[in-house]
Amino acid sequence: MRISVLGTGMVGQALAGGLSALGHEVAIGTRDPLVALARTDPGGVGAWRAGHPDVAIEAFADAARGADLVVNALSGDASVTGVGAAAVADGTVLLDVANPLDASGGMPPRLFVANTDSLAEQLQRTFPGLRVVKSLNTMTAALMVDPRQLADGDFSTFVCGDDPEAKALVNGLLLALGHRDVIDLGDIIAARGMEAMMLIWLRLWPVVGGPVFTYRIVR
Amino acid sequence: MRISVLGTGMVGQALAGGLSALGHEVAIGTRDPLVALARTDPGGVGAWRAGHPDVAIEAFADAARGADLVVNALSGDASVTGVGAAAVADGTVLLDVANPLDASGGMPPRLFVANTDSLAEQLQRTFPGLRVVKSLNTMTAALMVDPRQLADGDFSTFVCGDDPEAKALVNGLLLALGHRDVIDLGDIIAARGMEAMMLIWLRLWPVVGGPVFTYRIVR
Repeated sequence: MRISVLGTGMVGQALAGGLSALGHEVAIGTRDPLVALARTDPGGVGAWRAGHPDVAIEAFADAARGADLVVNALSGDASVTGVGAAAVADGTVLLDVANPLDASGGMPPRLFVANTDSLAEQLQRTFPGLRVVKSLNTMTAALMVDPRQLADGDFSTFVCGDDPEAKALVNGLLLALGHRDVIDLGDIIAARGMEAMMLIWLRLWPVVGGPVFTYRIVR
Repeated sequence: MRISVLGTGMVGQALAGGLSALGHEVAIGTRDPLVALARTDPGGVGAWRAGHPDVAIEAFADAARGADLVVNALSGDASVTGVGAAAVADGTVLLDVANPLDASGGMPPRLFVANTDSLAEQLQRTFPGLRVVKSLNTMTAALMVDPRQLADGDFSTFVCGDDPEAKALVNGLLLALGHRDVIDLGDIIAARGMEAMMLIWLRLWPVVGGPVFTYRIVR
């Protein structure tokens, strides 16, 4: 299918590469493609693109046009604006993997929305024509697209959203990427719980000594 | 050692029973012991006491007098008042296992403090002479005291707090109870992350089909 990944950062690069490797037609959406392509420093999307010539880098609306799936891999505070700029067609599935991090008060960050609301709900409210599914926000980018690198993928991956068909589409992608234990938490309100897991994730990072860890629900 | 467990509910009963079985001298603290002992219905602490004659049930301050460790197993919204009524001596370790649940807005509950503060921090601020350690709030009462009943205890148990000696005391108790993977998250601010895990825990309960589940950090 045709997939648009919004965001040129580490998460956007990982997801664009992983989904392209599955055989999908992938375009990365960004505010200014020329500025993005000029980022040829290590980690920059211009440098990354040299190894991924099949992935287009386009303006938000160009990347999203005709997409079967749009992935929000923008930073939390840029998400509503970026998805808006992409002018995603009504009915499209929006997979939201972002976290509402607010580092303005120092490290580790707090969340700019929590407990009684979530970023995923903000996106669903702002764009009621889209079918928002939250997933993958509880792990680092490398695990999103290559889960088998950690304990052969023996951990849990959460999804939530209001539209069962949209969740089925995302579930299929997750299984294709190698996720083994996908747990459907119900409607989009469950994103409050998924996003709140960042608060302990950020405390676990220094304890574990790196970002390659995540949660398994033992039951 | 002498341990006072504040709270007569399911969590208080489980912890009093489990710690008593380890050989500790345990007293349950409550507002009115006569009212508590009259609760002889199934689940009531009076009925429970019949099977645990070694555990005293006393008024908050009587139970806490001379305790080496006080456990806050009260409901979240009763915690500050209850710990205050116990008049716990300065320097005592307070193990806080409560969650700041607010069910006033319907089910599932939200938290009455989250993201930028926590119940454990509120307790530490209100009673600066105590040494607050947060732990065990991420699992159901049965798992707190009998972790090996689920996957032979192959899950993670978090602790945080400002006092290393207090955490070492709690760590020793956790290991004695059978906890296998105790993760020290650092200072008491980490309680924000531990308490926020309730938001996804409450969504997992119906999916799992019961409360006997918890988290393992796969790393």
